[in-house]
Amino acid sequence: MLLPNWVTDYKKTELSGDLIAGVIVAVVLVPQSMAYGLLAGLPPQVALYSSVLPLLLYAIFGSSKTLAVGPVGLMSLMTGATLIELNITNIEDMVSTAHTLALLVGLILLLMRVARVGAIINFLSHPVISGFVSASALIIALSQIKHILGLDIPRGLPAYESAYLIISQLFQSNLATAIIGLGSLFLLWAFKSPLFTFLKKHTSNEALIQFISKSGPLAAVVVSTLAVYYMGLNTHENVAIIGSIPPGLPSFILPNLEYSLLKELLPSAFLIALIGYLESVSIGKSMASQKRQKIDSNKELIGLGTANIASAISGGYPVAGGFGRSMVNFSAGANSPLASIITAGLVALTLIILTPLFFFLPKAALGAIIVLAVIPLIDAYTLKHAWSYDRTDAFSMLVTFFTVLIIDVESGIIAGIIMSIGLYLFRSSQPHVAIVGQVGNTEHYRNIDRHKVKTDEHILAMRIDENLYFANTNFLEDTVMTHVADNSALDHVVLICNSISYIDTSALESLDDIHYRLEKAGIKLHLAEIKGPVMDKLKQTEFIEKLGAENIYLSTHQAMQALKK
Amino acid sequence: MLLPNWVTDYKKTELSGDLIAGVIVAVVLVPQSMAYGLLAGLPPQVALYSSVLPLLLYAIFGSSKTLAVGPVGLMSLMTGATLIELNITNIEDMVSTAHTLALLVGLILLLMRVARVGAIINFLSHPVISGFVSASALIIALSQIKHILGLDIPRGLPAYESAYLIISQLFQSNLATAIIGLGSLFLLWAFKSPLFTFLKKHTSNEALIQFISKSGPLAAVVVSTLAVYYMGLNTHENVAIIGSIPPGLPSFILPNLEYSLLKELLPSAFLIALIGYLESVSIGKSMASQKRQKIDSNKELIGLGTANIASAISGGYPVAGGFGRSMVNFSAGANSPLASIITAGLVALTLIILTPLFFFLPKAALGAIIVLAVIPLIDAYTLKHAWSYDRTDAFSMLVTFFTVLIIDVESGIIAGIIMSIGLYLFRSSQPHVAIVGQVGNTEHYRNIDRHKVKTDEHILAMRIDENLYFANTNFLEDTVMTHVADNSALDHVVLICNSISYIDTSALESLDDIHYRLEKAGIKLHLAEIKGPVMDKLKQTEFIEKLGAENIYLSTHQAMQALKK
Repeated sequence: MLLPNWVTDYKKTELSGDLIAGVIVAVVLVPQSMAYGLLAGLPPQVALYSSVLPLLLYAIFGSSKTLAVGPVGLMSLMTGATLIELNITNIEDMVSTAHTLALLVGLILLLMRVARVGAIINFLSHPVISGFVSASALIIALSQIKHILGLDIPRGLPAYESAYLIISQLFQSNLATAIIGLGSLFLLWAFKSPLFTFLKKHTSNEALIQFISKSGPLAAVVVSTLAVYYMGLNTHENVAIIGSIPPGLPSFILPNLEYSLLKELLPSAFLIALIGYLESVSIGKSMASQKRQKIDSNKELIGLGTANIASAISGGYPVAGGFGRSMVNFSAGANSPLASIITAGLVALTLIILTPLFFFLPKAALGAIIVLAVIPLIDAYTLKHAWSYDRTDAFSMLVTFFTVLIIDVESGIIAGIIMSIGLYLFRSSQPHVAIVGQVGNTEHYRNIDRHKVKTDEHILAMRIDENLYFANTNFLEDTVMTHVADNSALDHVVLICNSISYIDTSALESLDDIHYRLEKAGIKLHLAEIKGPVMDKLKQTEFIEKLGAENIYLSTHQAMQALKK
Repeated sequence: MLLPNWVTDYKKTELSGDLIAGVIVAVVLVPQSMAYGLLAGLPPQVALYSSVLPLLLYAIFGSSKTLAVGPVGLMSLMTGATLIELNITNIEDMVSTAHTLALLVGLILLLMRVARVGAIINFLSHPVISGFVSASALIIALSQIKHILGLDIPRGLPAYESAYLIISQLFQSNLATAIIGLGSLFLLWAFKSPLFTFLKKHTSNEALIQFISKSGPLAAVVVSTLAVYYMGLNTHENVAIIGSIPPGLPSFILPNLEYSLLKELLPSAFLIALIGYLESVSIGKSMASQKRQKIDSNKELIGLGTANIASAISGGYPVAGGFGRSMVNFSAGANSPLASIITAGLVALTLIILTPLFFFLPKAALGAIIVLAVIPLIDAYTLKHAWSYDRTDAFSMLVTFFTVLIIDVESGIIAGIIMSIGLYLFRSSQPHVAIVGQVGNTEHYRNIDRHKVKTDEHILAMRIDENLYFANTNFLEDTVMTHVADNSALDHVVLICNSISYIDTSALESLDDIHYRLEKAGIKLHLAEIKGPVMDKLKQTEFIEKLGAENIYLSTHQAMQALKK
């Protein structure tokens, strides 16, 4: 059997780091998985099943050494939304549809590898991603308030309606539940911040700091479960609990492959795959660069694809690399995917022997775990930054954010992509054009609006700061013609092409047209500073023949010298 | 009343040109209109009604002095396709739906003016337009063969099915019809080519040449009508004729404004408006530049918008500026929109007194008129040109062409737009990057792969030939990091930014990230030749603070001098 590189190259010194990280991640993963299952509207065991086999597959096929795969917030939210959209409410159908969804996600990721279209995620701009993630985090946090306060709010409502219902029913909260929920929030916060600072001050054992400070979820789960159990809060006070989880490992399943279901799930599966891949690659890259390692995007597609298929056939739902968990893994000292294999083993052990312990686990505690996990994802910094640097980016971000909040996750991401691309095209369709003149007696030519330069009324030297392509050909024609109409003494137009890396067929026709129209007006067109690759393509064209090779100059200065009277 | 400029500035000397052009265009327009009506599946009077009031409105509000508005081939084809798509077969419903469509087209054009989004047509690249027009022309020509040969082929079939049916039924042609059809084709060709050459040789009277050589359609109509009438071909030989046209001018109509109909028509109306506007502006611009006049795209929207609304309320269907007709108008010496007003008057006169004469007009002659009008639109030159210059453009053109042929006109144009934009984005997501070195002892730095240059192993000078934006941030990071990994002696990376006109928020974050990662590796990042507008935006950012203003150089040479050991 062909073993992955990390197995053959494994060093003994790496073992302790992997062991510690593996255990810590398991401690984080078990409660977080169940919480994310709750978010997707699925029973807790589905989420736990997603945390065993997928981890092993990713360890074999993935390229990141420290990415911690499993259920994640965004994909759980999107899975839940898909199930609601398809109007599936029967719990068995929900679970079986979730398996099918994971299978589709896995197949789409593998297909993206085969078709070499992984680069498609490049078309999601950072502000769009940030707007999308922020709004999703807000929706996720909002969706957990009902669990934390013990309110009865239906699933699948738009964010503003949920918020309205929560506020209007605030005083109908279940007191015992609210105490558990808010208490858990406090406990989680205390572990995360004051305890972390305290530990930092008193010990330099990094693994110990990581272990204790990341045990917040475990502590919340243990404390709240004990409270419910000993006080009988589930029966006396109606505190919602997880209830019985079937013990043991998942059995293999063949997901439902009905054609009509596959067709209905396809668009959602595509977006879930895209988001999962995007999230995993971003996290993986950010960790890899800190250790001077490299992420292979193609291997990532295979790693995540097989992990999702593994999830589908072992009773799970869509998985990806999780941000918080991967950070825990990384900072607890994981050196190789062995850490993930250890995590998977511990989750499996939990399934075999510990599930009865979760019977009295209150949903309020899980809700609190989710809220604390997603709040750092709400990203006001990028908005502020984009707002001051580039309003159009801030605008795309806000459109994405509000579309996710008001309509839904899928519409939001589609609106964001369309906005980004549309604004980019719009901008490049109206490029910056500078009229340049000579700086003193140097060979330098600069924008007449920015520098004190000399110009010649017989020569118009114009620099176009953009590739020439179909969307700006009309702009180019209009700009040249307007300058020509404004200047009756003009004999020569010099287009400076040092910013032009590409001229498409439409723009070539436009240049030909401009040449023809200038000629009719008794004006000669010249080109200067054409880049090598552009000239290579132009050489073979009729346009260059018509223009005359003698009208093409290496530098603006040469052109100006030659054309001076 | 506020009169258009051309009225207040009118010179007497312009009158004769307008008069002659107005008459010639009317002679061309009457048979052509009826033929286009046939193409749309509408009765001939609908097309004639579209050739009266719309011309007057365009004369008042349009900006081109010589654009000849009226029914055109592409819009007739699209109108016909829309009616078939909506499954409207009853002739009265077809006519009333065509009015509503014209109204929507007019309103959309006016809305485009209000929203200032006329520039949207810039996103149609020349190859896509050419592919679209060529395929449409082929479909139009194909659709007329049944009229020319007297075959019974249903409307609305895909092109390949129509072609198959025509070939398989070729020997069931109606002989008398075929003789009229093919005879008309020959007559039209003879007027267009040999007669034109003959006249050119024997007279220098341009107006006379235009008048006679453009009278082909009139001649075909007169000869074929007389033949049918005297030989009774309609009854004895079953030759299809136009039949009775209600005499008189159209009465005013309020188009059907039912919400469900409007909603169904909207997508088609949008595309028809776009194509009509595009066609009119292209023709208008090409004529205006020959006379050093200017087309105001905004006024065009108003001119065409009001013309279409006028068509809707006077019993017509969507109109635009026609290529052939406008060329006739222009070369026959039209000086002002008065020519169009004269044309409109003559069409009105035709409606009042001449309609009985069209009773015996065979449809075969009209089919021949259409075929000769659209064949020049099939554009193999652009394909050949694009193929040798830029394969991706040729590919977009072919996709558009075949989608129009195999699926339909609307899908074709949408596929073309998506292809053009997608390929453009894909290209700019993998920009050209050059590693540069010093040319001799000059201040010039050129691509090491193209020129013999000196480099320094401690300094990597890299020129990126593209704006930096979300789609190429990953490429940028990977490229820089790969070069860094390949060169262990490296101390400095200089990014040469003279081709960068724009850095978006995503790319700014990437630069920040690259800076951070290089710093960790003990390598310093520098920027050179940043353009004014880009620097203006960068100045206020944290990135520049972190980078240090001293690491930004005006020229590559300055950077290299400063960094040399």
